[in-house]
Amino acid sequence: VNGACMAAEIEEQPQVFERILREGRPRILEVAQAIRRRQPRFVLFVARGTSDHAALYAKYLVETRLGLPAGLVSPSTVTIYDTHPDLRDVLFIGVSQSGGSPDLIEPMTRAHACGAITLAVTNAPESPLAQAAEFHVDVLAGPERAVAATKTYTAELLSLFLLVEVLGAGAPSYEGGEAVESLPQRAQAVLALDSEVGRLAVRYRFAEQLVVTARGYNYATARETALKLMETSYLVAHAFSAADLLHGPMAMIDRGFPVIAVAPSGQGSSALRPVMERLRELRADVLVVGGADACTLGTIGLELPDLGPEILTPILAILPLQQLAWHLARERGIDPDQPRGLQKVTETW
Amino acid sequence: VNGACMAAEIEEQPQVFERILREGRPRILEVAQAIRRRQPRFVLFVARGTSDHAALYAKYLVETRLGLPAGLVSPSTVTIYDTHPDLRDVLFIGVSQSGGSPDLIEPMTRAHACGAITLAVTNAPESPLAQAAEFHVDVLAGPERAVAATKTYTAELLSLFLLVEVLGAGAPSYEGGEAVESLPQRAQAVLALDSEVGRLAVRYRFAEQLVVTARGYNYATARETALKLMETSYLVAHAFSAADLLHGPMAMIDRGFPVIAVAPSGQGSSALRPVMERLRELRADVLVVGGADACTLGTIGLELPDLGPEILTPILAILPLQQLAWHLARERGIDPDQPRGLQKVTETW
Repeated sequence: VNGACMAAEIEEQPQVFERILREGRPRILEVAQAIRRRQPRFVLFVARGTSDHAALYAKYLVETRLGLPAGLVSPSTVTIYDTHPDLRDVLFIGVSQSGGSPDLIEPMTRAHACGAITLAVTNAPESPLAQAAEFHVDVLAGPERAVAATKTYTAELLSLFLLVEVLGAGAPSYEGGEAVESLPQRAQAVLALDSEVGRLAVRYRFAEQLVVTARGYNYATARETALKLMETSYLVAHAFSAADLLHGPMAMIDRGFPVIAVAPSGQGSSALRPVMERLRELRADVLVVGGADACTLGTIGLELPDLGPEILTPILAILPLQQLAWHLARERGIDPDQPRGLQKVTETW
Repeated sequence: VNGACMAAEIEEQPQVFERILREGRPRILEVAQAIRRRQPRFVLFVARGTSDHAALYAKYLVETRLGLPAGLVSPSTVTIYDTHPDLRDVLFIGVSQSGGSPDLIEPMTRAHACGAITLAVTNAPESPLAQAAEFHVDVLAGPERAVAATKTYTAELLSLFLLVEVLGAGAPSYEGGEAVESLPQRAQAVLALDSEVGRLAVRYRFAEQLVVTARGYNYATARETALKLMETSYLVAHAFSAADLLHGPMAMIDRGFPVIAVAPSGQGSSALRPVMERLRELRADVLVVGGADACTLGTIGLELPDLGPEILTPILAILPLQQLAWHLARERGIDPDQPRGLQKVTETW
C-alpha cells in the first residue's frame, strides 16, 4: 500500500514515547547532569529540515525553562564562510535524524574545536554526527523508512524536553514534569482522530497553497506541519508565527484562503486569538486544531482531547497533522513514503 | 500616482547610504566603541518583519566577522511566557523601523533588567524602543510613508554592518571595509535597472505562488524579497535557504514553478549552484538575479553590475527586488503604498 511505512511510523509514536521514558531517560539524565556540571551559559542549536523544528521547540524550552540565551546556528557560516567562533561556555546541540548530513558534521566538529560543550541528539548512535560530538543522546525511535520524518521528530522533541528538564533542575517545578508520564496514553487518544482527519483531508484535495499559524511553543508545530504538507502533498504551505503573520504576510490572505491554526490550550493559544479574529474578518478558511473553545473561532475545527500542560503540547499536536499530510498525499495520488525529488539523508554541502 | 511614496523611497536609497556614511558613522563608532569595551560574548537580536531580515544579516555578520555566537530571540518567550533570562555578557540588539511595536519594547526592557548590554537600531530616535535601550543608533533613513519598508531596510543593513565592523576592530581587515564607501554609487547603478525590472514584472502577472532562494548573507535578501512580494502583490512567496530547500520543500517544485534565485557573486552564490542545477532538472522557471555567470544557469536572468565584496551585496541586491515588488503590484492593480490589511506600525502583543 502506498504510504504504509509512514502510516506505521505515525502509529508507532506512543510506543516510541514509552521507550524513551523507560529506556532512554537514564542516559539522558546522565548526559544532562554531566553538561550541567560544566555550567553552560549559552545554547546553540544546529539542525536542518524537520530536526530544525525540534531545535526550535528546544530553543523555546531553553529560553523559558533554563533562562539562558539561545540561538539557531546558520551552518553556512562554517561551511561557506569558514568561521572560528569563540564558543567557551556554549552548549552546542546538533539535532539530526540520520546524523549523516555533512553540513551539520562540519559545524559540530568546528564547535568542539572552538571550545563548546557539544551534544548530538540523533536516531543514529553510530553516525558521524554522534561521533563528532562529546555527548550523544539516542532518541530511540527505531528505523524510519518513510522519507517524511514523523516518529523521529516527536522522539527528538521528547528527548530534548527531558534533557532540558534535567539541565534546569532547580528551576521552579511545574506541571510539565509529571504530565510527561502520560504522553503515551495521550498520544494514543490523539491518534484515534485518524478517520476524522481523513475526512478533513478531502477539503484540501485541490488547494494549491496554505498557511499554517501558531504562537509560542507550537510555532514549531506550524513549521513542521507546513514542511510535511510540502513534502508529501506538494502543497505550497507556509508557516508563520501569528505575530509575524501580522507583519506583512496578512496582506496576501483573502476570502477563502486556506489557513490552519494550531491552538491547543495554553498561553500560546490565547495569544493567537486576535489573529484568528483578523482571519475571520478576512473570511479566510480557517481550520482550527485545538480545544473546543478555540475551534469555535474557525471555519471548521478539529477538536483535540485534553493535551495536558502547554509545554508538552507540541509533542502531541503534530500527530493529527502528520495524519493530515498522509491522507492528503493519498487523496492526491502521491505515495507519501516516496515524495519526488527527496532522499532520506540530505547531502548539503 | 499609486505607489509614488514607495517608488520615491526606493530611489532615495543612495542618498540614505551617503547620509549614514557621512553623518551616521561618528555616532555608530561611538556606540560600538562603548559596547566593545564591555566585551560582549553573545549577541541576541529581536525584530519583526522586514527588520527581522536586517537582524538575520547582522547575525551572519556577528558570526563571521566577530566570531561570536548569536541568536534571534522569540519575543513570545518574554511577552507570552514571562521569562527572566540570565543575560550577563549578552549584547541585546532590537531592530525596528518605528521603534513602536510593543512586542519588541517589552523584551528590550526585560533584557536590560536581566543584565544585557542593550542597543536599539531604529529610524525613530524618540521611539519607546530607542528609549528602553541603553544605546541607540539612528539609521537616518528619513520619514518612510509607504507601508512596505524599503529604505529603512537597507539603512538598517548598512548601519548594522558599520556597527559590527567597529565591534570587530582587530579582526583581519578585508575588502568590505573600503568598498563600503562606494555603496552610494553602486546603488545608483543597480537602480538604473528599473525599466528592465518593469519588463520582467509582467512575467509574474498571473503567478499565484513563488519561491525565493539564496545562500549565506543573501538569505536575508531572499526573505525580504518574499515579504515584499507578499505585502505589495499578494503573491504567496516563500523564501528558503538553498540548503533548506533540499530538505523537503523541493518536492513541491514542478515544471514551470516560479523561482527567484538571488546569486550575486561570492561564496554564497557558488554554494547555490547545485540547487540551481536541481531546479533546472525539475524545469522550474528560475529567474536568476546575479552576475553574468550565474544568470546563464536560470531560465531568465537579471544581470547585476559588479556589487563588490559579497558581504555588502545584501545592501544592493535587494534594490531591484524592491522594484520588482513595486512593478508587480501595479501590474496587478494594487497600490503598493497601501497594501490591504496592513498598518505601518504593527501592534502585536
